[in-house]
Amino acid sequence: MSSDKALVGIIMGSDSDLIVMKEAAKVLEEFNINYEMTIVSAHRTPQRMFDYARYAESQGLEVIIAGAGGAAHLPGMVAAITPLPVIGVPVKTSTLNGLDSLFSIVQMPAGVPVATVAINNAANAGLLAAQILGIKYPVIRDAVKKYKENMKADVCAKAEKLEAIGYKSYLSDSEK
Amino acid sequence: MSSDKALVGIIMGSDSDLIVMKEAAKVLEEFNINYEMTIVSAHRTPQRMFDYARYAESQGLEVIIAGAGGAAHLPGMVAAITPLPVIGVPVKTSTLNGLDSLFSIVQMPAGVPVATVAINNAANAGLLAAQILGIKYPVIRDAVKKYKENMKADVCAKAEKLEAIGYKSYLSDSEK
Amino acid sequence: MSSDKALVGIIMGSDSDLIVMKEAAKVLEEFNINYEMTIVSAHRTPQRMFDYARYAESQGLEVIIAGAGGAAHLPGMVAAITPLPVIGVPVKTSTLNGLDSLFSIVQMPAGVPVATVAINNAANAGLLAAQILGIKYPVIRDAVKKYKENMKADVCAKAEKLEAIGYKSYLSDSEK
Amino acid sequence: MSSDKALVGIIMGSDSDLIVMKEAAKVLEEFNINYEMTIVSAHRTPQRMFDYARYAESQGLEVIIAGAGGAAHLPGMVAAITPLPVIGVPVKTSTLNGLDSLFSIVQMPAGVPVATVAINNAANAGLLAAQILGIKYPVIRDAVKKYKENMKADVCAKAEKLEAIGYKSYLSDSEK
Amino acid sequence: MSSDKALVGIIMGSDSDLIVMKEAAKVLEEFNINYEMTIVSAHRTPQRMFDYARYAESQGLEVIIAGAGGAAHLPGMVAAITPLPVIGVPVKTSTLNGLDSLFSIVQMPAGVPVATVAINNAANAGLLAAQILGIKYPVIRDAVKKYKENMKADVCAKAEKLEAIGYKSYLSDSEK
Amino acid sequence: MSSDKALVGIIMGSDSDLIVMKEAAKVLEEFNINYEMTIVSAHRTPQRMFDYARYAESQGLEVIIAGAGGAAHLPGMVAAITPLPVIGVPVKTSTLNGLDSLFSIVQMPAGVPVATVAINNAANAGLLAAQILGIKYPVIRDAVKKYKENMKADVCAKAEKLEAIGYKSYLSDSEK
Amino acid sequence: MSSDKALVGIIMGSDSDLIVMKEAAKVLEEFNINYEMTIVSAHRTPQRMFDYARYAESQGLEVIIAGAGGAAHLPGMVAAITPLPVIGVPVKTSTLNGLDSLFSIVQMPAGVPVATVAINNAANAGLLAAQILGIKYPVIRDAVKKYKENMKADVCAKAEKLEAIGYKSYLSDSEK
Amino acid sequence: MSSDKALVGIIMGSDSDLIVMKEAAKVLEEFNINYEMTIVSAHRTPQRMFDYARYAESQGLEVIIAGAGGAAHLPGMVAAITPLPVIGVPVKTSTLNGLDSLFSIVQMPAGVPVATVAINNAANAGLLAAQILGIKYPVIRDAVKKYKENMKADVCAKAEKLEAIGYKSYLSDSEK
Repeated sequence: MSSDKALVGIIMGSDSDLIVMKEAAKVLEEFNINYEMTIVSAHRTPQRMFDYARYAESQGLEVIIAGAGGAAHLPGMVAAITPLPVIGVPVKTSTLNGLDSLFSIVQMPAGVPVATVAINNAANAGLLAAQILGIKYPVIRDAVKKYKENMKADVCAKAEKLEAIGYKSYLSDSEK
Repeated sequence: MSSDKALVGIIMGSDSDLIVMKEAAKVLEEFNINYEMTIVSAHRTPQRMFDYARYAESQGLEVIIAGAGGAAHLPGMVAAITPLPVIGVPVKTSTLNGLDSLFSIVQMPAGVPVATVAINNAANAGLLAAQILGIKYPVIRDAVKKYKENMKADVCAKAEKLEAIGYKSYLSDSEK
Repeated sequence: MSSDKALVGIIMGSDSDLIVMKEAAKVLEEFNINYEMTIVSAHRTPQRMFDYARYAESQGLEVIIAGAGGAAHLPGMVAAITPLPVIGVPVKTSTLNGLDSLFSIVQMPAGVPVATVAINNAANAGLLAAQILGIKYPVIRDAVKKYKENMKADVCAKAEKLEAIGYKSYLSDSEK
Repeated sequence: MSSDKALVGIIMGSDSDLIVMKEAAKVLEEFNINYEMTIVSAHRTPQRMFDYARYAESQGLEVIIAGAGGAAHLPGMVAAITPLPVIGVPVKTSTLNGLDSLFSIVQMPAGVPVATVAINNAANAGLLAAQILGIKYPVIRDAVKKYKENMKADVCAKAEKLEAIGYKSYLSDSEK
Repeated sequence: MSSDKALVGIIMGSDSDLIVMKEAAKVLEEFNINYEMTIVSAHRTPQRMFDYARYAESQGLEVIIAGAGGAAHLPGMVAAITPLPVIGVPVKTSTLNGLDSLFSIVQMPAGVPVATVAINNAANAGLLAAQILGIKYPVIRDAVKKYKENMKADVCAKAEKLEAIGYKSYLSDSEK
Repeated sequence: MSSDKALVGIIMGSDSDLIVMKEAAKVLEEFNINYEMTIVSAHRTPQRMFDYARYAESQGLEVIIAGAGGAAHLPGMVAAITPLPVIGVPVKTSTLNGLDSLFSIVQMPAGVPVATVAINNAANAGLLAAQILGIKYPVIRDAVKKYKENMKADVCAKAEKLEAIGYKSYLSDSEK
Repeated sequence: MSSDKALVGIIMGSDSDLIVMKEAAKVLEEFNINYEMTIVSAHRTPQRMFDYARYAESQGLEVIIAGAGGAAHLPGMVAAITPLPVIGVPVKTSTLNGLDSLFSIVQMPAGVPVATVAINNAANAGLLAAQILGIKYPVIRDAVKKYKENMKADVCAKAEKLEAIGYKSYLSDSEK
Repeated sequence: MSSDKALVGIIMGSDSDLIVMKEAAKVLEEFNINYEMTIVSAHRTPQRMFDYARYAESQGLEVIIAGAGGAAHLPGMVAAITPLPVIGVPVKTSTLNGLDSLFSIVQMPAGVPVATVAINNAANAGLLAAQILGIKYPVIRDAVKKYKENMKADVCAKAEKLEAIGYKSYLSDSEK
């Protein structure tokens, strides 16, 4: 996937969401999937949001990842405008812990779905983008399979260690 | 307030919200406040929503009442675009009872407030619009005061009746 | 999309979910997307679920839509096994209204995303599947755009009617 | 708006709410809107609350901003007494995170609306007051428009920076 | 307790609460405790509420039972004004099922407690009033003990029946 | 398991819970496990509850199933007194849908566990009792395995039918 | 109230609740009301709880204050046994913030009320006890009135200060 | 219980759950019950989970304790496969505090119960395992009784101390 064209657009409502949303970028980097990342606020820059969504397809994007918190309208509004699949990341909030973000993103009316992932789980948004792109690009599909293998191996290694040394040593090792 | 120009715009995301939102219209009618009412879906007609919000002020509107359910983005998106005060009515949903609508409308980020009323309480949205207009139009302010007097008289009449005849007769009267 | 091969697999945990999940099938039919539909219970037929997920890709499926209620494990478990994108539909429950289903489906750990749609909104799952397939099949992308146009036209027609005849006539028309 | 008369009254149930409510004052200061600020407890000083609400209009106030936490009765009780529009700020609580405050403020019965903003979002209460006053005072309306322009410019500058230097540099800059 | 003076005042925010609140009256009747019952709306008749609370003690009342729904301010506001113990009954609402009423009544700040009972459980408010009066009037204390004995006997009779005839017969008996 | 001695005690706080709790009895009947069933209210018959729990073991019971709703104390109080495993069934309530029952039963402090099943799911309580007894009685273990096989076969038959006739025929069959 | 006999019993489920429950004691000390305080766990010492409740009245207690967290059964179980009024304090928990404690205490079934106060608000439990005792002891009633006066004076002093020096100075004073 | 064969299997979805789940192990150690402990992720190692559950019975395990957080599928999936009783521990999450974990574990459909304990309360899972094993192994039953006696003695000692020295000394002792 070494073309220069970004296949995935990562947007967020505020730069305070960057600490969460950067995890989506990291996963896409692991998959060598080109992405672009910027700030697009549905509420503070509605025209910019509109234009971003309207031109996303013609710019060559194939999937959009949008993160927002509170009354989180960015993912749903972008999905209202573009025919591309939109993945929504509900960002945790300081008052309602992201339950407001989750409801604002997932409870979309018939006709405008947002593919919602767990609160603050931008890594999964990146991975879901890879799985979606995998239906078109076999190399990404293969990378997804490899990713799953690596996760399995990682869990098995930890399990083996825990079985071998017991929870006391395991925990004191972790604290180091 | 007998001019023809609408001062209040009542919009809703779907005609299924009309049964709730008509109560806002009824209150405005009681106050002789001209209003216009239409359907504007943030998700199904984003451009129409955009245009509605952009031209609301120049059309002469002074307050906007917007009702929506679920991932309810209409009030917040309109508030993002217009400088007018926007009143949001969270419409009750069949799954989460309107808690999703409430969070999606009230939890707006700094910079874009929506004046949120109770779930399904479009009558209060109409009344709040009247109170807001009352700061500019003394005749509406006076009508608000009269409205409060009437409410008081209504409660007092019921209280008097209950005290006079007791709860058993009162309830059997109500059932008639 | 007139081949015989199913591109989308629609599965559900119980035949009591069929009344909800059939809406996904209807949307796919509108888009002329071949699908297969069956019952796969993570809890009552774990081996069948396992096999379904393991062979989904080699059977030619490209997207899986999985609906379940309560402690809804089907979407997440299928997503754990297949590299295909999995769309989860939280089915409304009689006790917690589907909040349990939503949390059980959307709150997946890092590494195994489920593309979650609104509670009971299987229609949106079908539409999201179409949007995902649209990145590979231009004819589906075009159909998605047409679908959005139709939604817009439908809202505009209703808006025009409401503006023309007012809410009283509109509502009395609706009751007929 | 350089008259000495306060147009907005900011009240709160306890001085522990001041840290939150001062943000409303700051926004009003930005708009050069005169305000007064004091402590009025519905529960600990009911008579004082009563008098405050009763004389608010004759004192020249045009909008009241009331913040309270827990069983937050101040905004609703003031709204019961005055014909002025009342903006309610649900203050975050240590146990229920402000969900109790939100419900106590927003779920008002028909006849007595409170224009509720997000939990702890007193800045938005100030801004909503400005939007409401903007229907009467063109200079405030213009300032609201300018405020929105500034927000837009601020987001765009951040977006440009993020696009230019990427998330790693952006985040390490933020930490400085 | 055969004096004519009412010891308990039962108040509610609206006559729609009467169907719930009458249960408090019924329990007090069982205990031969004189009560008065009326409608006092904190929001629609704030002055009436104020006066009711202020004169409750001098009128001879010893306990007040107040029921309200939604942003339920009546119990807390009455408690703010009177030194009498106030029992609050959160009335179930059509949208949030009374969770809003419960939070609005029970989450009172330090200094103004409301003795809150379960949602819609006005019978328990009546019983709690009896228990409170029982610390002063031995005849009521004795009646409370008798009430508990009766409850016990009632449960035991049902238990005996269930053990004797089994659940099938018991249920088919109940349906008759 | 054809002895006359009851191995499982099914208790509930009120005969209104019987319609839910009978499902536990039905499952035990399917497994030929002897049970006894009665009404024991923690709140209305505390001494009876105490005695029931204290003598449960010496009466030969091996597992207790306790159902209750609202502030559901029965399962936890019985668990406080007996060394037997106690299974708790949270009964759905008319106001909080059983969330109150669930929290009151499952959130037990360290030292006194209650094995909690889903809201209203007394059938699962019966099945869990069978699984627990299965560690001692091989015939019950075998019956549990058979039960699982039957569930699987039932799902597979439904799946086969759905695959064969499609959702339209399946649903119209179900309505008959 | 200088007799040696305790009128109020303060109990809690665990010594970890002491940090919360001591506030009830402090308020009673302010009112010169004799109290006794101990640990009584419904779950870990059910017999002790039983005996405490059974002998509370004959020991001379007139009101019981019981605090507990999680599946908080202590207040309800004591209320089941004694004819005295029982005040329940839901203690905040580390997982569900005390919502579990609140539901477990307030949602009592008909026949056994618990006078519930706000989460962690033991001070209000002490004050409610004073208000209840005030119906019997005029000196306590008078002290309650004085307490309310003091609260009012305290708020007014703070309000005066805030009005005099403004929020900036007020807040910088508070930080000292 | 000094055989080498593990009677209880403790599994968890991730090694980050170990800090919570180790408490189950500690309780089993107190009871001298052999256990094994490992990491089994339903999502990252589905085949391993499958095999673990399938062979648990033949490996000699009699009870399984499974802990997981978020969309916590491990307990329910293991319960779907094994005929052994499965105890589920909902692990607290950083966003929804474990309410997601609780719903995902407890709300199992009919046919596949999970014996759920309180959020993060792995100690109770260990104790429940002991109570279940106690129906087969009298020595464990006796240990359960002893455990309850010790808890009682511990509470009584603390109660005695609190009564003797008062809350001020007690709390200052605790801080040491």
